[in-house]
Amino acid sequence: MPATMKALRKTHAGKGLQIEKLQVPSIGPTDVLVRVRASSICGTDLHIYGWDRWSQGRIHPPVTLGHEFCGVIERTGEEVSAVKTGDFVSAEMHLNCGHCRQCRVGQAHICQNVRIIGIDLDGAFAEFVKIPATNIWKLDPAIPEHYAAILDPLGNAVHTVLAGAIAGQTALVTGCGPIGLMSIAVAKACGSATVFATETNEHRRALAIKMGAHSVVNPLTEDPVKKILEATGGTGVDVLLEMSGNPAAIQQGFKALRAGGRASLLGIPTENVPLDLVQDVIFKGATVQGIYGRRMYETWVQMTALLKAGHLNLEPLFGERMGLENFEAAFAKLQNGLAGKILMYPNGIQG
Amino acid sequence: MPATMKALRKTHAGKGLQIEKLQVPSIGPTDVLVRVRASSICGTDLHIYGWDRWSQGRIHPPVTLGHEFCGVIERTGEEVSAVKTGDFVSAEMHLNCGHCRQCRVGQAHICQNVRIIGIDLDGAFAEFVKIPATNIWKLDPAIPEHYAAILDPLGNAVHTVLAGAIAGQTALVTGCGPIGLMSIAVAKACGSATVFATETNEHRRALAIKMGAHSVVNPLTEDPVKKILEATGGTGVDVLLEMSGNPAAIQQGFKALRAGGRASLLGIPTENVPLDLVQDVIFKGATVQGIYGRRMYETWVQMTALLKAGHLNLEPLFGERMGLENFEAAFAKLQNGLAGKILMYPNGIQG
Amino acid sequence: MPATMKALRKTHAGKGLQIEKLQVPSIGPTDVLVRVRASSICGTDLHIYGWDRWSQGRIHPPVTLGHEFCGVIERTGEEVSAVKTGDFVSAEMHLNCGHCRQCRVGQAHICQNVRIIGIDLDGAFAEFVKIPATNIWKLDPAIPEHYAAILDPLGNAVHTVLAGAIAGQTALVTGCGPIGLMSIAVAKACGSATVFATETNEHRRALAIKMGAHSVVNPLTEDPVKKILEATGGTGVDVLLEMSGNPAAIQQGFKALRAGGRASLLGIPTENVPLDLVQDVIFKGATVQGIYGRRMYETWVQMTALLKAGHLNLEPLFGERMGLENFEAAFAKLQNGLAGKILMYPNGIQG
Amino acid sequence: MPATMKALRKTHAGKGLQIEKLQVPSIGPTDVLVRVRASSICGTDLHIYGWDRWSQGRIHPPVTLGHEFCGVIERTGEEVSAVKTGDFVSAEMHLNCGHCRQCRVGQAHICQNVRIIGIDLDGAFAEFVKIPATNIWKLDPAIPEHYAAILDPLGNAVHTVLAGAIAGQTALVTGCGPIGLMSIAVAKACGSATVFATETNEHRRALAIKMGAHSVVNPLTEDPVKKILEATGGTGVDVLLEMSGNPAAIQQGFKALRAGGRASLLGIPTENVPLDLVQDVIFKGATVQGIYGRRMYETWVQMTALLKAGHLNLEPLFGERMGLENFEAAFAKLQNGLAGKILMYPNGIQG
Repeated sequence: MPATMKALRKTHAGKGLQIEKLQVPSIGPTDVLVRVRASSICGTDLHIYGWDRWSQGRIHPPVTLGHEFCGVIERTGEEVSAVKTGDFVSAEMHLNCGHCRQCRVGQAHICQNVRIIGIDLDGAFAEFVKIPATNIWKLDPAIPEHYAAILDPLGNAVHTVLAGAIAGQTALVTGCGPIGLMSIAVAKACGSATVFATETNEHRRALAIKMGAHSVVNPLTEDPVKKILEATGGTGVDVLLEMSGNPAAIQQGFKALRAGGRASLLGIPTENVPLDLVQDVIFKGATVQGIYGRRMYETWVQMTALLKAGHLNLEPLFGERMGLENFEAAFAKLQNGLAGKILMYPNGIQG
Repeated sequence: MPATMKALRKTHAGKGLQIEKLQVPSIGPTDVLVRVRASSICGTDLHIYGWDRWSQGRIHPPVTLGHEFCGVIERTGEEVSAVKTGDFVSAEMHLNCGHCRQCRVGQAHICQNVRIIGIDLDGAFAEFVKIPATNIWKLDPAIPEHYAAILDPLGNAVHTVLAGAIAGQTALVTGCGPIGLMSIAVAKACGSATVFATETNEHRRALAIKMGAHSVVNPLTEDPVKKILEATGGTGVDVLLEMSGNPAAIQQGFKALRAGGRASLLGIPTENVPLDLVQDVIFKGATVQGIYGRRMYETWVQMTALLKAGHLNLEPLFGERMGLENFEAAFAKLQNGLAGKILMYPNGIQG
Repeated sequence: MPATMKALRKTHAGKGLQIEKLQVPSIGPTDVLVRVRASSICGTDLHIYGWDRWSQGRIHPPVTLGHEFCGVIERTGEEVSAVKTGDFVSAEMHLNCGHCRQCRVGQAHICQNVRIIGIDLDGAFAEFVKIPATNIWKLDPAIPEHYAAILDPLGNAVHTVLAGAIAGQTALVTGCGPIGLMSIAVAKACGSATVFATETNEHRRALAIKMGAHSVVNPLTEDPVKKILEATGGTGVDVLLEMSGNPAAIQQGFKALRAGGRASLLGIPTENVPLDLVQDVIFKGATVQGIYGRRMYETWVQMTALLKAGHLNLEPLFGERMGLENFEAAFAKLQNGLAGKILMYPNGIQG
Repeated sequence: MPATMKALRKTHAGKGLQIEKLQVPSIGPTDVLVRVRASSICGTDLHIYGWDRWSQGRIHPPVTLGHEFCGVIERTGEEVSAVKTGDFVSAEMHLNCGHCRQCRVGQAHICQNVRIIGIDLDGAFAEFVKIPATNIWKLDPAIPEHYAAILDPLGNAVHTVLAGAIAGQTALVTGCGPIGLMSIAVAKACGSATVFATETNEHRRALAIKMGAHSVVNPLTEDPVKKILEATGGTGVDVLLEMSGNPAAIQQGFKALRAGGRASLLGIPTENVPLDLVQDVIFKGATVQGIYGRRMYETWVQMTALLKAGHLNLEPLFGERMGLENFEAAFAKLQNGLAGKILMYPNGIQG
C-alpha cells in the first residue's frame, strides 16, 4: 500500500479545486479504508467549486470533496467485524451523532449534528477514503460498478418516491435533473400509473420519456396545471415529486395535486416560497413531506433490492468517464447541465 | 307537528341575518327531520353575517345558517333503518358525493363536490333541520347536550390532534380560539407531554392554561421560537397544531418544530404564506398536513369515545345560552372574540 | 329489452346447479341493471355446486350464483347520476350496511352485516344482474373484457400485496391458485425483489414462473423453509402472501418470514391452525394481517391503475370460454384444478 | 472506587442463585460503568432461578442476573461523550448487532444477533454494571428512582399499547401481571375509551381497577367474550393487548376483538396455540402484532415523556424493597405471584 495518494480538494476559500498529494488516511478501530473505484460529481460539488454563498458558510478548506462513490475495502480497524478487506462497497456519507432526538427515534437521516464526508470531512475524490464501518454499504456483486457509484443520488430518488404509496398512483415529477429522472424510473418500477413530468430543458425532456414518463410538459410553452387536470378528469395527480427547487414549479405542482394527495419535496429553493396554503394544502387535506438524504438504512435496502431485481435501467443517465486529473473538463461540462452523471476514476479507468 | 317554524337566515345579499317563518322541511326517503335542541355559532357564521368577500362568492341567499347543533329525530324517511324517531343526535353537515376519487378512497371529508348544510343548504339555526340519514350521528345519552352542540368544531380539534402520533409527544398549539383550546384538551387527554401554546389575547391565554397547556406565550411580548427551543434543549416540538391562520404564527410554528416533526394546519390564512421550505420543511424532513373538516366518520367515533370516557373537560369554553331570536346580541358578543361558544335554542332554552 | 332471461342457479338444497328462465330483475331508484358480458367461476362457486358444509349453512336456495363479471349498463334507477346506460362496468359485489362500526371507520370491506350478490342475492351467472349504483365500478375502455371479468379475484391479490410495503421487498407466495398467481404478477409490478413461491401442482408451478416468480418450491419434495432461509442469508423473506389456506403451508410461511416481516393471510383454512406464536410472531415482532375482499374502493382504484398502465400480464391465467349452458363442462374442468379462469358468456360469446 | 463488588449470580447449572464477590468490571472505550441504585426482579429471573427448560438452553453460568435497574454513572470510556460521570441513568439491556437486516431497517429491537445484559452478559444485580454508552438512557431528574428501576417492563407496556392507535379506542387487556397492569395505565393515559381486562387472580383484579380498568372479568367464573360483546353492542373491542401467554386467554381475546381490530401479543405461550384464523383473523381483517422488547429508542422517548408529564401513577405496582443479600426472600415472595415489583438495592437501601 502506498503512503501517499492524490486527492481533489478545495485547498482555500475561493473558486476552483486543486489536485494535491496527501498522506493516505490512517484509520481508527471502528473505521475502514476504501480504495475508491469510481466517484460521481454531485450538484453540490459544483456549488463548492463555484464557491457560492452556501459554500462560503459551510465549507472549511482544506477538504477533499466527493460523496458519491464505490470502491473496495483496503483495510479495516481492529473492532470491525461486519465487513472485510476486499469487499465491494459504497457508503452513506452522512455521519449521524447517535444521541440527538432524531437519532433516537429512527430518523438518523435528519440528525441534528450531522457531518458529511466530502463536505465536512475528507471525501472520495481521492485514491482512498476513510469511513466509519457502520456507514459502509456492502454491495451485491450483481450491481454494476457505474451504478454503485451513484447510489447517493439514486437513494434520494428512492427515498422520495417510497416516502408514501406509489403503486397504482398517478405522479408528477417537477424537474428532470438526474434525481428527477431517476425518480421517474423508480416510480414506474414500483407500479405507479401515469407519470407526468415538467422540465424546461429539451434534452432532459427526451430523457424523461426514456426513463418512462408518460407525458412531459415544458412549462415555458404550456400550462402544466391545465394539462394535468385535463388528463386526470379534473382530479389532479396522487403524488407530487418535487425535484426542481424552483418556486414556480413548486406552486404548479401543488395546483396539480389532487385533494388528499402527497407532495414530497426534495428540490432546494434558494428563497422563501409563497404558498397558497388554504387552497393547496388545507382545503385539499394534502400531506407535504420534506425529504432529505436517505433513510438509514431502509433506503439502501430498497435501492439495492430494486437494482438487484433488475427493475431499474439507469443507462441513459450516464455521461463521460474520466481520470480524476481531468476534473476541470468534467466540471465545465456539468456547468451547462447536459452531461448526465460524469464518473471520475481516482485509481484509473481500466477495470 | 307544526307546519311552520322559525329560522335564522341570510335572506338577501348584504350584511346581517333575519328571522323568518318557513315551512317545516319535507323529507325524502333517505332523510331524517331533526327537532333542533341547541345550535352553536361558528366563526364561519360571523363571516356570513358580515358578508365578507368569501361569503359573497359562496353563499346563495336565501339560506338558513347553522351547522353546529344537536337535536332529536322527529321523523324518518321510509328507507331509513339505522336511526329512529326520538334518537338524540348530531350530524356531519358536510355532504359528500360518493363517487369522486376522494370519496372512493376513504377521504370523503375532502370530497370534490362537497355541499354543506348551513352553508349551501338550509341549516340548523331553525326549529327543524332536514339531514340525510347517512350523515346522522347518534349520540350516547352520556354526552351532555351542550357538548353535543359543538361536536363539529370539537371534531376539527380531534381530527387535527389525532392526524399523527400524539402520546408522549411535545406539542405547540398556535392560536387559542375555541378549536385551539379544544386541541389542548384533546392532546393532553391523548397522552401528549408538554403542550406549549401561543396567543395574543389575554383572556384566551388564561383559558389555554385551564385547558391543560403547560406554557402559553404572548408572541407580541416574547419570542415563542426562542422560548420553545430553550425549553426543549434546542430540539423543538414534535407536533405543531396550527389553529390561527396567522402567517407570522405559522412561520413561528415551523421554526419551533423539530426535525422529523409533524405540522398539522387547520387555521385558514387569508393570503399566501411565504415559507422557508429548505430550513423548515426539507432539511427538517418535516411532515405537513392540511386538515379539513372531520374524517367521516373515524373522527366522530374517536370524539364520542373521548367524551364518553370522561377524558375532556370543555366547560371553560362555554359562554351564554339564548333563544334564537336574541341572535343579534350573540353575534355582537362573538365579534369581540371573548364570548366562548354561545348556544342558541330554537325551540326554547328550558330542557 | 326482454322480459325474461336465463340464469344459472342453485334451485334447491343439494348438489349441482340448474339453468332457469326468470323475470329480468326490476330495479329500485338507486340501482342499475347490467347486461352481463362475461362471468368467471370462483372457487366459492365450486363449493356451492358441491353443496359442502359451508354452503349448507350460508346459501338459501333459490339463488342465482356469480360474483365475478363485467357487463354494460342497460338501465339506471331515477336517482342514479354517477353512471349511465351504455357504461362498461364491473362491480363490487359485497354490499355493506353503511352504519356498523367498520363501515363508519373506513373498513366497509369487513362490514358486520355484509350481503354478497351471487351468494346471498341473485348474481351474475345470468343475462342481467341488478346492482346498487354505489357498488358499480366504471371501467376504462383500455381494460380488455376478459380482464374486466376477473377483477374480483384480482382485487383480492392487489388488496393482499398492497396491504403493506412491497417495493424492494422479498416475498413468498404460498399457494399458486389463480389468486396466488395474480399476486406474483402484482408484487413484481409493484417493485418487489425476489419472489419465492410454493405449490404442489406442477402445472401451477410452471405458471408461477411465467407470472414472474424467481423460484418455486414443491413442498412435497423440498423443504421450502430451508431453501428460502439459505437464499436470504438466513434472514427470511420480508413479506408472506398466504394464498393456500393449507395449515402446513401457513406454518412454513411463518418459519420463512424474517423478524419484523409482514404475513398477509388470504387463503381459507378449513380447521384451526396451531401456530408457534412465540418464535414465529412474538419474538419475530411480525405483523400478521387478515385479508378479506377488496378495500372499498381503494383496491379498485389501484387495480384499475395497474391494468391501465400495462403493468400486469394475466394472459397465462385464462382457460376456456363458453356459453352459460355449458356450465357442467366448466365446473368439471375446474374441479381438477388445471383449467385457469373459465369465462362464461350468458349473452353469447361473440362480442 | 472499590476493586471488588458483590453480585447475585447463577454460578452453575441448576436451581438457585448465589451472592459472589467479583472484580468491578473494567470498561472499554465506548462503555460506561454504572453504580447500581435499584434493581427490579423480572419474571425471567424467576425462570432462571428455577432453572427451567428455557433457562437450561439459554443461560451459560457463571453470569450475573438483572436487567431492570437504575443507577448513576461512575466512569466513562475515553470515546464516550453523550453521557458523563454522575448522570442518573437506566439502560436498554438488549444489545443489537447493528448490521443484520432488522438493525438496518429501524427494527433493532428484533436484531437477529441480540445479546442481553443480565442474561447473556453480566447484569445489574450487582454493585456495578458495565454497559455500552449507546444503550444508556439518561433520566430526567423528575422521574423517581423506583419508577426508574422498572423502565424495562414499563417499556414493554408502552411498546404494546402504542404499537397502533389507542386514543378513543376500546381495549381488552388479557392478563394482569405487572406488564398487563401497566398497560391499563398507559392505555388510559393515552386516551383509550373503555378498558376491559381479564385475570384469574383476585388481588390482581383489584389492582386492575386501581390502574383504571373499567371492568375486569374472572374468566374462571364468567365468559369474557360474551360480556365484552354485550358491552360493545356486539362489535367487540378495537384493541387486544395480550399479556398472559395463556392459550385460552389468547383465543378469548381474538373472539372479543372487533373486525378490523388490532391484537398486540406480548405474553409468551409455552406451547403452540391453535387459532381460528378464518373467523378471528382473515374474515375479521384483523391485524396481529408480535411485540418484543422496546423500540430502540422510540419507546424510551415515549415512556419518559409520559412519566415526566405525570400521566402515569404506578404506585400500586410496587412491593417491598430489600438489600441484594435478601434475594431468597424476594424470589420466594414473587413465586406466589402477589408481591408486585420487588426492588433490590445492591449498594444499600438508604438513598
